[in-house]
Amino acid sequence: MSKPNVLLIGTGGVGTIVAYGIDYAGKSSLSVVVRRDYPKVKDQGWEINSCNYGTIKGWKPAAVYESVSAAGEAGVTYDYVVISTKSLPDIVKPEVLAEPVITPGKTVVVLVQNGFDLGRPFIEKYPENVCLSGVSHIGSHNHNGVISHIQTDKAVISVFENPHLDKDFQVEKAKEFISLYSNDKNDVSYFEDTKWYRYRKLVYNATLNTVCALTGVDTGRLDLSGTLESVSIPAMREVVKIAKADGVELPEDVINTVVHSDDGDWFEPSMRVDVKKGNPIELEVILGNLLRVARELKVDTPVLSLLYELLKAVQFRLKEGQGLITVPEKRPISTKYYS
Amino acid sequence: MSKPNVLLIGTGGVGTIVAYGIDYAGKSSLSVVVRRDYPKVKDQGWEINSCNYGTIKGWKPAAVYESVSAAGEAGVTYDYVVISTKSLPDIVKPEVLAEPVITPGKTVVVLVQNGFDLGRPFIEKYPENVCLSGVSHIGSHNHNGVISHIQTDKAVISVFENPHLDKDFQVEKAKEFISLYSNDKNDVSYFEDTKWYRYRKLVYNATLNTVCALTGVDTGRLDLSGTLESVSIPAMREVVKIAKADGVELPEDVINTVVHSDDGDWFEPSMRVDVKKGNPIELEVILGNLLRVARELKVDTPVLSLLYELLKAVQFRLKEGQGLITVPEKRPISTKYYS
Repeated sequence: MSKPNVLLIGTGGVGTIVAYGIDYAGKSSLSVVVRRDYPKVKDQGWEINSCNYGTIKGWKPAAVYESVSAAGEAGVTYDYVVISTKSLPDIVKPEVLAEPVITPGKTVVVLVQNGFDLGRPFIEKYPENVCLSGVSHIGSHNHNGVISHIQTDKAVISVFENPHLDKDFQVEKAKEFISLYSNDKNDVSYFEDTKWYRYRKLVYNATLNTVCALTGVDTGRLDLSGTLESVSIPAMREVVKIAKADGVELPEDVINTVVHSDDGDWFEPSMRVDVKKGNPIELEVILGNLLRVARELKVDTPVLSLLYELLKAVQFRLKEGQGLITVPEKRPISTKYYS
Repeated sequence: MSKPNVLLIGTGGVGTIVAYGIDYAGKSSLSVVVRRDYPKVKDQGWEINSCNYGTIKGWKPAAVYESVSAAGEAGVTYDYVVISTKSLPDIVKPEVLAEPVITPGKTVVVLVQNGFDLGRPFIEKYPENVCLSGVSHIGSHNHNGVISHIQTDKAVISVFENPHLDKDFQVEKAKEFISLYSNDKNDVSYFEDTKWYRYRKLVYNATLNTVCALTGVDTGRLDLSGTLESVSIPAMREVVKIAKADGVELPEDVINTVVHSDDGDWFEPSMRVDVKKGNPIELEVILGNLLRVARELKVDTPVLSLLYELLKAVQFRLKEGQGLITVPEKRPISTKYYS
């Protein structure tokens, strides 16, 4: 029996280490889609300095493509497509991006991405396919094609449950993927309750990540300024309330645990770092998707909703800065009447 | 009878033109307190390029002091003290700053400053003194001691009513000040209802100025991103509601008028410009004072309150950037339990 075909899309700091880990395990035939760094990687391979794998120069997998459509035209049926791009559906919808490489009823999609309820658009578009959740706890950065991997690759794999498919089959696929990805250096485990896990992450991401992004401070200064207590804590209570309405019971001390998770560090969360660098933020998959669920469950979210609306203006600015939005030189005059 | 003594504190773009206008009128003996630009002004006077007064080189009033205490030690009893500094009571309380030059029961204080309910701390501290409100509609900037005055000096003077003093006497003092300040170039008028006027300004300043400061966009992009409609408009409704509870009836179309006041321009409000330059923002006199009144009147302000709490973290960052706050190298560990 030939090895299963795995394609990984998105070779940032996290994606490259996931790809390397899969290749190192040696149980699958790995291809990757590399965009920005393609010319360098095609020619010289990667340079990786890894706390798990040591110093590696010139590594590249069996096949390297510069676009998803090129990977789709390669005549390979992919058993697994791992998506580890930043999750920015307001710019590129991952389920559309991956279309050329997904075989309906066959390809298992693995979303190694931040955010909440990420499986929904995939399951809607590919009702016959299994969709897995990968939450990566890793410290790894890509500086112009050089990977600095500083914190061990710990990943938690679970199922974004597809109601059209047998549950056991989906779990089996998750475990098969874990066996392809696991090796003697990394730590890849299965977790039953995807929703619980993603809600647990949101207690931080929807409240500290967002407020730091908006105000331009780290979590320590957020605490000292009083805004942690007056804004982020009420926002956390809203996340816990949505989870509860969704049948997910978070630990009683979750808010305290999350608040103290950066104790001792002037820590800048990822969304704050993105704003600083001028990169679009993962607003839709963190707050947008959460608030969609809150509306469906009729949970009132005054704080989270306002943070979302404010961050939309920030996202507008970031997109414009990247040339994804342009405005005319003269401001158009709105004719709308406001009262 | 000798001319009344006027002292002006705060010679930014606005203050310098007010000072020049008073000196040009020639009805008072003018002194000014100049801080940052003192060495230059003491030596060479100001350079002013003014749409009202033309090009002026080397102007300085009768007396120039480098501090308020120096002005207080000059042996002059000031009939009027005009305060045209930025209003940052969380950094320097103007009523404390001006103490050396205020003679109880004598000096009339004129606050040519942004913000709301500015008279309250003055009347509390100086219950026997008249306190006037000056709202300046002017375009004027100070670039390293060179003043660019591009939009005519139009000022509206009214009374911050002091309940310990006769109303007519306060109005008389306002009109006397107008006569000292008015000349054939500027436009200085009396307005009866200070509270109405200040509430009217807040419909813009508490809602567009603040949200642009927080999100980093101008009012045009705020509109295009949708955040004008989802955040600033509800905030405006809260201002109108507080005004109403305070007995002030704003025009029915005030929200529409305010929204369309920047039509055609990608306009960056002052607070946004301050954030961009790293200057502390007039948060306390705009939102802080307004919300104090809202609490007293038991008006619910979910949007304005959240904006205020978020901007506190921004203000923390700005103050730290100016060396007004320092934090230890290692983040202190909070022992507080959050739930």
